[in-house]
Amino acid sequence: MATSSSQEQDVQGEVLKKGKPREQKEDAEKLLESKKQADDGQSGGQFVLKCAKGTRDYDPFQMAIREGVFSVIISCFKRHGAVSISTPVFELKETLLGKYGEDQKLIYDLADQGGELLSLRYDLTVPFARYVAMNKIKTIKRYHIDRVYRRDQPRMTLGRYREFYQCDFDIAGEYDPMIPDAECVRIVYEILSQLDLGSFIIKVNHRNVLDGMFEACGVPPEKFRSICSSVDKLDKTEWEEVKKEMVEGKGLEEAVADKIGEYVKLSGHFELLEKLMSDMGLTAVASARAGLEDMKLLLHYCELFGVLDKVSFDLSLARGLDYYTGVIYEAILTGDATMKDGEVPAVGSVAGGGRYDGLVGMFDPKGQHVPCVGVSIGIERVFSILESRAKEAGGKGIRTVETQVMVASGQKNLLEQRMKVCTLLWNAGIKTEMLYKRNPKLLNQFQYSEREGVPLLVIVGEEETVKGGVKIRDTHTREEDFVEMAALVPELNKRLAECQHSERV
Amino acid sequence: MATSSSQEQDVQGEVLKKGKPREQKEDAEKLLESKKQADDGQSGGQFVLKCAKGTRDYDPFQMAIREGVFSVIISCFKRHGAVSISTPVFELKETLLGKYGEDQKLIYDLADQGGELLSLRYDLTVPFARYVAMNKIKTIKRYHIDRVYRRDQPRMTLGRYREFYQCDFDIAGEYDPMIPDAECVRIVYEILSQLDLGSFIIKVNHRNVLDGMFEACGVPPEKFRSICSSVDKLDKTEWEEVKKEMVEGKGLEEAVADKIGEYVKLSGHFELLEKLMSDMGLTAVASARAGLEDMKLLLHYCELFGVLDKVSFDLSLARGLDYYTGVIYEAILTGDATMKDGEVPAVGSVAGGGRYDGLVGMFDPKGQHVPCVGVSIGIERVFSILESRAKEAGGKGIRTVETQVMVASGQKNLLEQRMKVCTLLWNAGIKTEMLYKRNPKLLNQFQYSEREGVPLLVIVGEEETVKGGVKIRDTHTREEDFVEMAALVPELNKRLAECQHSERV
Repeated sequence: MATSSSQEQDVQGEVLKKGKPREQKEDAEKLLESKKQADDGQSGGQFVLKCAKGTRDYDPFQMAIREGVFSVIISCFKRHGAVSISTPVFELKETLLGKYGEDQKLIYDLADQGGELLSLRYDLTVPFARYVAMNKIKTIKRYHIDRVYRRDQPRMTLGRYREFYQCDFDIAGEYDPMIPDAECVRIVYEILSQLDLGSFIIKVNHRNVLDGMFEACGVPPEKFRSICSSVDKLDKTEWEEVKKEMVEGKGLEEAVADKIGEYVKLSGHFELLEKLMSDMGLTAVASARAGLEDMKLLLHYCELFGVLDKVSFDLSLARGLDYYTGVIYEAILTGDATMKDGEVPAVGSVAGGGRYDGLVGMFDPKGQHVPCVGVSIGIERVFSILESRAKEAGGKGIRTVETQVMVASGQKNLLEQRMKVCTLLWNAGIKTEMLYKRNPKLLNQFQYSEREGVPLLVIVGEEETVKGGVKIRDTHTREEDFVEMAALVPELNKRLAECQHSERV
Repeated sequence: MATSSSQEQDVQGEVLKKGKPREQKEDAEKLLESKKQADDGQSGGQFVLKCAKGTRDYDPFQMAIREGVFSVIISCFKRHGAVSISTPVFELKETLLGKYGEDQKLIYDLADQGGELLSLRYDLTVPFARYVAMNKIKTIKRYHIDRVYRRDQPRMTLGRYREFYQCDFDIAGEYDPMIPDAECVRIVYEILSQLDLGSFIIKVNHRNVLDGMFEACGVPPEKFRSICSSVDKLDKTEWEEVKKEMVEGKGLEEAVADKIGEYVKLSGHFELLEKLMSDMGLTAVASARAGLEDMKLLLHYCELFGVLDKVSFDLSLARGLDYYTGVIYEAILTGDATMKDGEVPAVGSVAGGGRYDGLVGMFDPKGQHVPCVGVSIGIERVFSILESRAKEAGGKGIRTVETQVMVASGQKNLLEQRMKVCTLLWNAGIKTEMLYKRNPKLLNQFQYSEREGVPLLVIVGEEETVKGGVKIRDTHTREEDFVEMAALVPELNKRLAECQHSERV
């Protein structure tokens, strides 16, 4: 790492101003410099220029895609009447403890620098529950889009990072059964349809049905959560392997595992419900009966919300988090999106959630419960898909700047004129740029406009200035027209409106 | 903290489902519960429900204000042709070391949990420089709005937090002198004007002029940065106190301090420039002469950009950060914004920035420099002002939800009908809500609409259903009209367009 003394900065600044590239420095100077770096450096001169493991920068192209995705998602959340809240990126460590089961070990802690013990948030759900309890809120429907942190093994080619976005929508409040739950399914449906990711399925299940199934199969109650974690792996792992983990790893009797194996094959709609409702083993468990009643209502409401064809009641869906208490969801892309083979898995979870009626109560000093249900959109995988799709299309249709007019000149000594025109256009709210050179080459100004998709140029020239105006050039047709200064803003606005119109068409 | 066993959650869920409020629990049960909490709790049962020191949640009202402010700022950045980038919230610790002078102690470190040593970002400028160097970028104009972290003493009533937003706009690249620098001033001008925060002044100065001033006054070179830090306090501290720090704290001769005292009183435009240019002591210093030439150009360009009346060349402006190498800025509200006395300081810095030509080179393995200049909007203070202003106005004009239509019913057993209508409206892209009750009271639905500013209701009724339609109710006039189901969406769209139009007028 170079030193930061201002003297050295001045010297280097001088070198650059003269346009003399650093490479031309004498070798002796270079050696001196690298010795200095080595003496100075925090890591013995081996300064590594990179992002922290599992994190990444977003470049302008990625940000343009991200902005488009967020816009679709936020519109959907607002269409369903959600407010927005925001919580800090770190919480008191104790706020996060005891909420994530085995995954607690993935939480990032801050160093103890005196004062409170803090951790980076692991998801947006626990901070939401803390917020609801802290503010004694009885009902709220909110969305929250922000980054969360997990010290997991990153698999960045699959869109799995240590820092990643979650887009959460949750409904808190004491309501009639399954109405908000069904709206969450509807929201996942709307977002996945509008993002145009290809066909998808929303798997639904219920914690009570799962637990009832375990009980009916003969799993000892103390192993429910642990066996549930194993079932959770079925989306990525074959049954035989999961069974092996249950039997050899967790000491389940093989006969019990086999019974579970029969159940987790099952999926469907009302016909599955009927089958399970006549399953004597299952319906002997009271909570399983209640869970099946919930599922019946959920499927009925999904039908009314017009989304039943995308919903599948699936007994293999488990979800690992401790805090779920009722319905659980997971949306899976079923693979016909236009994506490169190998880059993005053909099948993958892009949304998940469920009901967590106990979480707020864990924070309330009086244990006051506020039932909640919500969904989280797995936005990083969506980004991966849309990014590789956009790259395949050669980045067409994605602009990283929104500039409408480039104020240009092909003659010398017109910087002041260009600046005045920029001022005029900024005052009129027109997105305007000029090159930061006294005397830029006209070709550079044309090339910038073409590369960045700037539709119009305003060209300042001596002749036009004498006539009291400028030329407008259409980047696409390359036609140029003289316009008087007083008419410039209205004429540009007229043409920009036309551009926008033709883009829509 | 309560336990998280699913059994207890079920019991409590049951209690809630029956609508039996927690307060009615038997005292014995309560006592048992609190004992359990004490046995269980991570901090001996003293679970504190709060945000980490110096951080805060944003509630929906604050988020609505924030969204409005961001929208103004992002529009301005886009109007000037900026792209957007994003960097991770934490960086390798060594990336941040040696960039912030004395303030380095305020950096939050992450705990060493194996692997890399990480720190939360302190600003967006150093990550930007790291990004530019890492990607070997030669020119970029980008904005970045995100949170940064400083373990400072929080003064939350003054809008000073440990986690806070920065809105940065920077121009990197080898350009002709002062053109991008002047555009940064223009951007601050546009944003502060559009946010309507009352009158303001943009102070400008130059590191070389400051250093030349120190040299001319007889400050020993090794004390430049330290004395610069003292001058930086002049916006909040009287001269006499700053002088005391210089003389008693930093061992400066009193006569030297007095000379500085004369300079830092000075501010103005071209007349000040002339005065300084004929100051033999100052112009004897080569870098000061160059700095004054820069300032002359800057003021001239500010005039062309139509912002000179808001700009003041001010020799008391110092800015503490180590990395500035040229022009520095700071925008100050001069106090006639409508704000409550005491709540928000009448005078305060709301934007700052400057040129930092050496920072990217500190990251480049070959020391390749990329000159940069930028500004950062101090958005938290802006939030504070606008929030207290909105509260004074009773929150009028600020909606936290954007719902356009409430689908309501006054009769029983119409849940399915309401759901079908919601589906119809969501499919048409209309922002629609219904209450999550089987049989909600009509009054509750009216009240919700009035409180949240929902302009229209669609009322489902038995009689209307027989006639194949619904009623539309105008929340404002309370008039109700029957409309056939086939005509519902067009009719709503027509009325919503009218609502929007009348809001604009």
